[in-house]
Amino acid sequence: MVGRSLARLLESRADDLYIGYGLKPRIVAASDNGGMACDTTGLDCARLIRAKEHKGTVAAYSDGHGGGGSNGRGGRAPDSSPTAAEMAEAVSGADVLVEATPSNYKDAEPGMSNITDAMKRRMHVVSVNKGPLALAFPSLNELAAYNRVMFRFSGTVGGGTPILDYAKNSLSGERITSFSGILNGTTNYILSAMADGMSPKAALQDARSKGYVEADESLDLDGLDAAAKLVILANWVMGMKVTMPDVNCAGIRGVTSADIKRAAKKSRVVKMTAACGNDALTVAPVAIPRDDPLCVNGTLNAISFTSEHSGTQTIIGRGAGGTETASAILRDLLYIRQGITSGAYG
Amino acid sequence: MVGRSLARLLESRADDLYIGYGLKPRIVAASDNGGMACDTTGLDCARLIRAKEHKGTVAAYSDGHGGGGSNGRGGRAPDSSPTAAEMAEAVSGADVLVEATPSNYKDAEPGMSNITDAMKRRMHVVSVNKGPLALAFPSLNELAAYNRVMFRFSGTVGGGTPILDYAKNSLSGERITSFSGILNGTTNYILSAMADGMSPKAALQDARSKGYVEADESLDLDGLDAAAKLVILANWVMGMKVTMPDVNCAGIRGVTSADIKRAAKKSRVVKMTAACGNDALTVAPVAIPRDDPLCVNGTLNAISFTSEHSGTQTIIGRGAGGTETASAILRDLLYIRQGITSGAYG
Repeated sequence: MVGRSLARLLESRADDLYIGYGLKPRIVAASDNGGMACDTTGLDCARLIRAKEHKGTVAAYSDGHGGGGSNGRGGRAPDSSPTAAEMAEAVSGADVLVEATPSNYKDAEPGMSNITDAMKRRMHVVSVNKGPLALAFPSLNELAAYNRVMFRFSGTVGGGTPILDYAKNSLSGERITSFSGILNGTTNYILSAMADGMSPKAALQDARSKGYVEADESLDLDGLDAAAKLVILANWVMGMKVTMPDVNCAGIRGVTSADIKRAAKKSRVVKMTAACGNDALTVAPVAIPRDDPLCVNGTLNAISFTSEHSGTQTIIGRGAGGTETASAILRDLLYIRQGITSGAYG
Repeated sequence: MVGRSLARLLESRADDLYIGYGLKPRIVAASDNGGMACDTTGLDCARLIRAKEHKGTVAAYSDGHGGGGSNGRGGRAPDSSPTAAEMAEAVSGADVLVEATPSNYKDAEPGMSNITDAMKRRMHVVSVNKGPLALAFPSLNELAAYNRVMFRFSGTVGGGTPILDYAKNSLSGERITSFSGILNGTTNYILSAMADGMSPKAALQDARSKGYVEADESLDLDGLDAAAKLVILANWVMGMKVTMPDVNCAGIRGVTSADIKRAAKKSRVVKMTAACGNDALTVAPVAIPRDDPLCVNGTLNAISFTSEHSGTQTIIGRGAGGTETASAILRDLLYIRQGITSGAYG
């Protein structure tokens, strides 16, 4: 979905990106679990989207009659996913890999191999896949530095809301001492529904019916998604070298309607916060004051940074979503383009 | 107060600013309405603060026995304020002017002359004075470009909350289509108190007693302060070329307890918002939904940017304050230092 949104964004804003930012990216390859399309002279975004929407895979791009194992240029048999190596081979001249396979927190594959292979081939990397970052942020950063490539991942935290960039750049010169955020929209939706009187079961069912819950429900309900974002923030913003096992992680499965009511009596609301302070990383349901700016409803994300001299600052915005994540990728591509033209990178 | 906070910040963070950012600023002159101190080899921050706190003016810096019209090096008679020209003369070798005289929206003096004189002498300028920007943003920007100097003003909007930087940089690649903010903490404090049941008179008295209201009450109550910030945002973020007379400005003097109650019945809260959309600039009391993230209490500031692809994003933080504004100046100094060392500026 993210890939399609990105293709749409690049297509619809082609003129303005070229005129305003000098950005005119050539997409030399696209891959999904149905196969791969590639063309070193550049793939057409509209045609890629059509192939995906009508045939279910980009592999049908150069194949006039369906997604089957034809021999159209760039088309591949849908029953054999291309490996990262094959893909990298096909596009060895590319400048940037955009990695958008699903996050997994067991071994982070196939994203991990895609990213490390690309870096070793001196490609800059944009990842919206949280898995590799959650499990190996410090070493991926080192690998990027060693190979002198840029590594960006704006879309991993906050979707379209540039939380990482804000903390790193807008607060430059400041010392952030702690932060706390509501980084998982699904659990926030469920807890908001419970605060409105729904039972935990009904709230979960409601979230499922709206398509908010990940296929692997544990990612949301046990706090893994929030923990991954917390790890990325702690590394990027606080300079900590941590990975998922460093997080004390408790999800929302244990939260009862009685907990919610008890909090309400004290003008508080139960929220699953991801917090970093005093070198400790915690994801857990916490009762926070109702008038705390962090207290957002529904699927919104929010994060409060406390800095030494500027007090506490909160950013609120939509979390993940195809268009939002695509716009985060675009920000990263603009950053990389600037880095390349500045001459600091090959 | 801002100058003192800045001196304190530079003093207390000297090591970390030098080690972390290579910033070791030399303050060659400081001026207040009691006079001026200057020393091309650098003034000592701690001593500047002592002079200000014990004698009431930095003019007492090099004067062992009080702030009177002695002949100590750099000391001046307190009854004759130095003109911008005199000051610029004394420090003609300086790289940067930090302009922090009070904002006025009639002729913006003395800030306007201080800034234009400095730019003509090829000095970079950091302004926390909103007056010159509110009345002449487009031409000041042109003057800066013509003289190839950097002009920064992070502290004019949002105090320590980097609103301008966020909108310009963190959202780069995005098209902001509209924004709406609560940019004046004083009126927000008064309206919050009224929402809690105070009469307009009592709320104003309460705000006065806490020192929240400017000496010229019209700046807060008639919305001039918010309008000035709106003009700065519209120029900087939206690329509009506008000044104060372009704002439809209504303050909070007409808001009654009945208005507040009527809004409350609809789960709304009356807030003085500064809004930009459809090429119109408006400052006015508006009833907004209670669960809108913009709905902050007390003296907090908040602003929501709506962009084409990332939805609506809200930033909340403390507004003005000595330390906060000083940290904004520091951010601008770091930016200018980077610009100078990059070689893009003389």
